[in-house]
Amino acid sequence: MASEQQKQPWHLTAAEALPLLQSGDLKAEDYVNSLLHRIQQRDEAVKAWVYLNPNQVIQQARHLDEVSAKARGPLHGLPVAVKDVILTKDMPTQYNSKLFESETPIAADANCVMSLRAAGAIIFGKTSTTEFATTKQGNWHQNLTTNPHDKTRTPGGSSSGSGAAVGDFQIPISLGTQTGGSIIRPASFNGCYGFKPTWGAISREGLAQWSVTLDTCGFFTRSVEDLELLSDFFNIRDDGAPPSKPFTLKGATFGFCKSTYWPSAGAGTRKAMQTAKSILEKHGAIVEDVELPNDFDKVLGWHAAVSAREGQASFLGQLMTDRTHLHDNIIGYGENRGNVSRKDQLEAYDECARLRPILDAIASKYDAIITPSVVDEAPADVGNTGDMNFCSTWTIMHVPALNIPGFAGEHGMPIGLTAVCPRFKDRQLLHVARTLGPVFAAEGGWQPGHNGVPQ
Amino acid sequence: MASEQQKQPWHLTAAEALPLLQSGDLKAEDYVNSLLHRIQQRDEAVKAWVYLNPNQVIQQARHLDEVSAKARGPLHGLPVAVKDVILTKDMPTQYNSKLFESETPIAADANCVMSLRAAGAIIFGKTSTTEFATTKQGNWHQNLTTNPHDKTRTPGGSSSGSGAAVGDFQIPISLGTQTGGSIIRPASFNGCYGFKPTWGAISREGLAQWSVTLDTCGFFTRSVEDLELLSDFFNIRDDGAPPSKPFTLKGATFGFCKSTYWPSAGAGTRKAMQTAKSILEKHGAIVEDVELPNDFDKVLGWHAAVSAREGQASFLGQLMTDRTHLHDNIIGYGENRGNVSRKDQLEAYDECARLRPILDAIASKYDAIITPSVVDEAPADVGNTGDMNFCSTWTIMHVPALNIPGFAGEHGMPIGLTAVCPRFKDRQLLHVARTLGPVFAAEGGWQPGHNGVPQ
Repeated sequence: MASEQQKQPWHLTAAEALPLLQSGDLKAEDYVNSLLHRIQQRDEAVKAWVYLNPNQVIQQARHLDEVSAKARGPLHGLPVAVKDVILTKDMPTQYNSKLFESETPIAADANCVMSLRAAGAIIFGKTSTTEFATTKQGNWHQNLTTNPHDKTRTPGGSSSGSGAAVGDFQIPISLGTQTGGSIIRPASFNGCYGFKPTWGAISREGLAQWSVTLDTCGFFTRSVEDLELLSDFFNIRDDGAPPSKPFTLKGATFGFCKSTYWPSAGAGTRKAMQTAKSILEKHGAIVEDVELPNDFDKVLGWHAAVSAREGQASFLGQLMTDRTHLHDNIIGYGENRGNVSRKDQLEAYDECARLRPILDAIASKYDAIITPSVVDEAPADVGNTGDMNFCSTWTIMHVPALNIPGFAGEHGMPIGLTAVCPRFKDRQLLHVARTLGPVFAAEGGWQPGHNGVPQ
Repeated sequence: MASEQQKQPWHLTAAEALPLLQSGDLKAEDYVNSLLHRIQQRDEAVKAWVYLNPNQVIQQARHLDEVSAKARGPLHGLPVAVKDVILTKDMPTQYNSKLFESETPIAADANCVMSLRAAGAIIFGKTSTTEFATTKQGNWHQNLTTNPHDKTRTPGGSSSGSGAAVGDFQIPISLGTQTGGSIIRPASFNGCYGFKPTWGAISREGLAQWSVTLDTCGFFTRSVEDLELLSDFFNIRDDGAPPSKPFTLKGATFGFCKSTYWPSAGAGTRKAMQTAKSILEKHGAIVEDVELPNDFDKVLGWHAAVSAREGQASFLGQLMTDRTHLHDNIIGYGENRGNVSRKDQLEAYDECARLRPILDAIASKYDAIITPSVVDEAPADVGNTGDMNFCSTWTIMHVPALNIPGFAGEHGMPIGLTAVCPRFKDRQLLHVARTLGPVFAAEGGWQPGHNGVPQ
């Protein structure tokens, strides 16, 4: 604990901060002031926030500091950043869309925000997103978020600010959403954990909708313990009793799945997969290559069909209201410009549904499957949020997926790998990652600070 | 057209009113005044509305009357009632929950409301619901909606007010939601059409969430033409060109599916099924009994498992905020009191997914499947919204389902039957119903006015 207290509060993970906040050893006001100071130093370069009102944050913290120890909620004083496609009753929600440019808050919390707030979390501010969490960072908000490790590079998307703020130690926890790779990719690019739980684990009420089959709410953190803490709170639990002992690599089995998209993998991701394999084998784990059955070759096409045709339903209100304010990609969904037929849509639904238990069975042979998160380190183009194709299969298969940082690209930027378990084995995944994450960080070649982010 | 114009405006269907509104032959202000007058006469008995501000309605109408003919939207002047689990930016949304008793509107429209408003529809008011669209009408709002045909009877639920208001000619169109039978059942009890389209056809953004697998937005109307009009607007379209000729009963084939729940059917529903069969055969249609494969016997159990475990995720925010204001059933979901395991949940997901194309294949042998909507006519207990079990299978199978009124129970109350087609054959279903509905109304034994509702 002594070493924890030597850290500046902004440096703490949620799991480190929470007992200090609960006991009163760390006042919520001091904690948020430390984070606000960190943000003040870093915001000019990173620009992760689209709404942040320091007074409002301090007021929340002061109010919480007045709560007696007995009456404190399970997440007392924990600061959480919220992707700006998620409703917050006291902050505007703008979706990076000129259609929602009003500064007036919509007077409702998304169900996940309502839960966090009621548990004593501090709803800190809103983080940047691509337009309605779809393709492009730059539409209305031209003040693009950058990668905290190199401001000429993208933080990824669509959860751009949520990934950048956590990766940059501006906040311990943020909420994001994933329809293709919108949590995993920014987590990889910014060097933090990004967790997309099993489909449906967290309420989507009050979140922007793109695809009912795909949209999933999840988290960014800098430790696996933080994800376990949040999963406890959100009732993300596997069947059976939790494991009583830490996971050990010796004798563990991992499936390495390069996937059909592997030919697109760049040098950084190729090296990360190779390095991870060496590390695991060195620690006594068994690593096997996993080739998914041929039917999985079609999954990316099915993902595209589902997101296009469900997008048509989701964006009708925006198209009807004012299409001149919408990115052409969104208008394209609204018009079903890709001519996806109902037959195509049904094939995608039914074939993916058929493959889900098949993937579960394959994944259940291993402690986890390891697979690329991204094509390579973050592109040197702030407006190009990158490629979702290494993530989309796991999204439409509804399995839990976790970006584990620890590797470095050719320019020293962070690269993560994705660990996957069967559906509703979210806690198995986190249990494995609690051991795996620190090993990758120690031996993979990248840790926070590697790129000169001030610590 | 002359006969239409002799009707009082409140008596018109949407398809009758829309061309008059577009041309200016019927002013929006006159139309809404006629509806408001109808509501004034009837509201003391029926109590369908939880929010209705006549001045706000008249202001919307006056504003629309000033729009030039060229600039009028596709739904110009069309009044729509909105179930009070759907966000409206200018009216409170209270979910029949004391947790949301604020009279302040949440400053956002649900995507479906945004679409309607942008097309020139008049967002008329909010209609009563059970608490968060779950089981019980009476929690916070003790002023229970009654059945317009007998005020000692229930209008059904959870879309109680939306069904009652349309059945009582207080509004031509209303929005509802269905997770079990919350559109079909009130449509049957109130004697109107209730349409639950294929899962995902209409955006759920801004709607209360109970179950991501089940929740479906749909409509109440008094004609099939109105549903076709709304389906055109919401891009609910089958593959292929729409049929150019009206559907004819002679030579058509219908599958009659009593389902495993048939032993629970009361006298009214038994007679309705028998009468429908006789009518169809008299008109030259071929009627075959459909027995679903044995696996379908388990579907009601899977529906219960999915709604319970997804409900746990959906109601976390409410439980965290103040469980003393929640119905015990909702707390039960939050606590997973039924001990539904993840294994149960996965079995429900995967088995239902496997059965969906099987049901599509069975249904595609017929022009439509005919099946009960309800156990019997509306129970003589205003607080008992009835039984969803004849509807739940079609909801979890994601197929389009339509309540067609036209039959009478032992006490002269309306009873409808459900017509079902394969997924994404929504328009085939409506095309068939456009012929079937008027025949059932003419020969089935129940029409509006049958129970002395003032016309």
